[in-house]
Amino acid sequence: MINNEIVSKIISSKNVAILPHIQADGDAIGSCLALGIALTKLNKKVKVIMEESVPEVYNFIPGQAMVSVGSEYKEGLDLVITLDTGDVGRIGERIDVFKSVDSTINIDHHGTNNEFAVLNYVDADSAATGEIIYELIKLLNVDFDADIATCLYVAIATDTGCFKFKNTTSKTHRIISDLISFGVNVSEISGKVFDSTTKEKVRLMGHAINTLELLEEGKIAFVNISNEMLKAAGAKEEDCDGIVNIGRNIVGVEASVVLRERSSGDFKINLRSKTYVDVGQVALKYGGGGHKMAAGCAIKGDLDSIKKMILEELKRLL
Amino acid sequence: MINNEIVSKIISSKNVAILPHIQADGDAIGSCLALGIALTKLNKKVKVIMEESVPEVYNFIPGQAMVSVGSEYKEGLDLVITLDTGDVGRIGERIDVFKSVDSTINIDHHGTNNEFAVLNYVDADSAATGEIIYELIKLLNVDFDADIATCLYVAIATDTGCFKFKNTTSKTHRIISDLISFGVNVSEISGKVFDSTTKEKVRLMGHAINTLELLEEGKIAFVNISNEMLKAAGAKEEDCDGIVNIGRNIVGVEASVVLRERSSGDFKINLRSKTYVDVGQVALKYGGGGHKMAAGCAIKGDLDSIKKMILEELKRLL
Repeated sequence: MINNEIVSKIISSKNVAILPHIQADGDAIGSCLALGIALTKLNKKVKVIMEESVPEVYNFIPGQAMVSVGSEYKEGLDLVITLDTGDVGRIGERIDVFKSVDSTINIDHHGTNNEFAVLNYVDADSAATGEIIYELIKLLNVDFDADIATCLYVAIATDTGCFKFKNTTSKTHRIISDLISFGVNVSEISGKVFDSTTKEKVRLMGHAINTLELLEEGKIAFVNISNEMLKAAGAKEEDCDGIVNIGRNIVGVEASVVLRERSSGDFKINLRSKTYVDVGQVALKYGGGGHKMAAGCAIKGDLDSIKKMILEELKRLL
Repeated sequence: MINNEIVSKIISSKNVAILPHIQADGDAIGSCLALGIALTKLNKKVKVIMEESVPEVYNFIPGQAMVSVGSEYKEGLDLVITLDTGDVGRIGERIDVFKSVDSTINIDHHGTNNEFAVLNYVDADSAATGEIIYELIKLLNVDFDADIATCLYVAIATDTGCFKFKNTTSKTHRIISDLISFGVNVSEISGKVFDSTTKEKVRLMGHAINTLELLEEGKIAFVNISNEMLKAAGAKEEDCDGIVNIGRNIVGVEASVVLRERSSGDFKINLRSKTYVDVGQVALKYGGGGHKMAAGCAIKGDLDSIKKMILEELKRLL
């Protein structure tokens, strides 16, 4: 439960800045805007200060009039609240804003959060920071409305992968049930957030699939993406995100590898596993990092020998 | 609310057959097995009689020992319950089983249900038959357990497209919240049901994407699938399902068309729209049918002229 000190500090403040982490995702943005709308209803002056502007995919999200981008805004602030931000480094350039006030609050759901603010509340059992903000808005006695509900829906739905990830709990669905009762356009938002793609990304997927190789009786999937493919698809580097899941989602595949040749002989390797293979080990061996199920590294060399090397590593773990 | 007559009839029966519709989907199978497990806990003899066997994708679902396939099983039945079945035609060959008893119950959430049984309960406000079975099991005073919860989770999650479709309500999430509290392995089940594919389907997607054309300033997407592509991918006819969504999900696309050439000059046309174009109109014009957002028809001719014809129709609706 969020302690009284945090609630009192918010209640007694008048001019509040709310900061999501750099490269803000749905949880960070949705949580900041939901809290911002709630504080506005308490007659506070509120700015949501972002490092970058709101990504196109969230262009429908309510409360964007509160957003300012960059580190300039500091006018008379008496409280800065960071949301979904595990450490000071994730504040980015806006560290000036954070340091411009004596009162700071850090609310997050990352277990690794190092409690860098004056007041801190970290709950690693929450699937999303949005779940914590839901409770906080209740504690602040603000009436929920469709705008707040929509922001929190986006926060929680995105951080749980549309309620599919391991972090999804009974509480998650209880909160979402309540939010929907205030008027969330579930199908429209889901369509925009989860089922939207670009023609460039689709074309890149096509090129990538054309290179799909299944080895070791279908347990290992390899895909490679060259600059030529990106060019032919009109795609950007970020369009490579998620392509590793094409292989991972195939029945029988345990480990999926994407070899992205960024410049001649310079490969970025993306690894995913499904159940038991620790791809983090493989990435670590080549100076990369990550977790058991998702990891990455960079290797210089030619496609065939790199593929062979990684294959040998993965074979030992099958 | 399900009426007392239905509850009393179930309570007083001893040997019950539960029937999903033909080509049973997640809602039909999950609902039947959940109710089957609940009735077994009330010491009834229960068979879930299916037209076809349980599809591979649901191989993890609890209660499969109750399943028998085909129309033979009639031993001493005193009650037949159909679930998720809109009309008698959807009972298929098992009509013999249905007709072998005097007591029949029809429980469904399709608004078009024509109440063909002795006792009928149709609630079109439920997102899935699974939501109704959840209430029914409560009325039967059976304790929920992880098996019942898992079956109902599958039923509701699949019929709401993982909580993304328009039918998803506050009630849907309230029920799911309760079910998860009994022990549903959300991430494992979601992975199997929503994120699993086959290498053949992935390869077919690759071939299909290679044919992607965007016309009318990106508002109309065309893809075609030939028998050669199916063969090259090692894919089956059913692997064509869903490929129309690749085009539909592209930002800016309003209508998506898949032209599937089943035999030389014989095309099956699959149409989807995103917001305002009524593709049902187009399908109807060529002797097909469907809804505003999803429709289909069959046309004989050559690829280019069919494409041109459909393009002209769609252009008028843009």
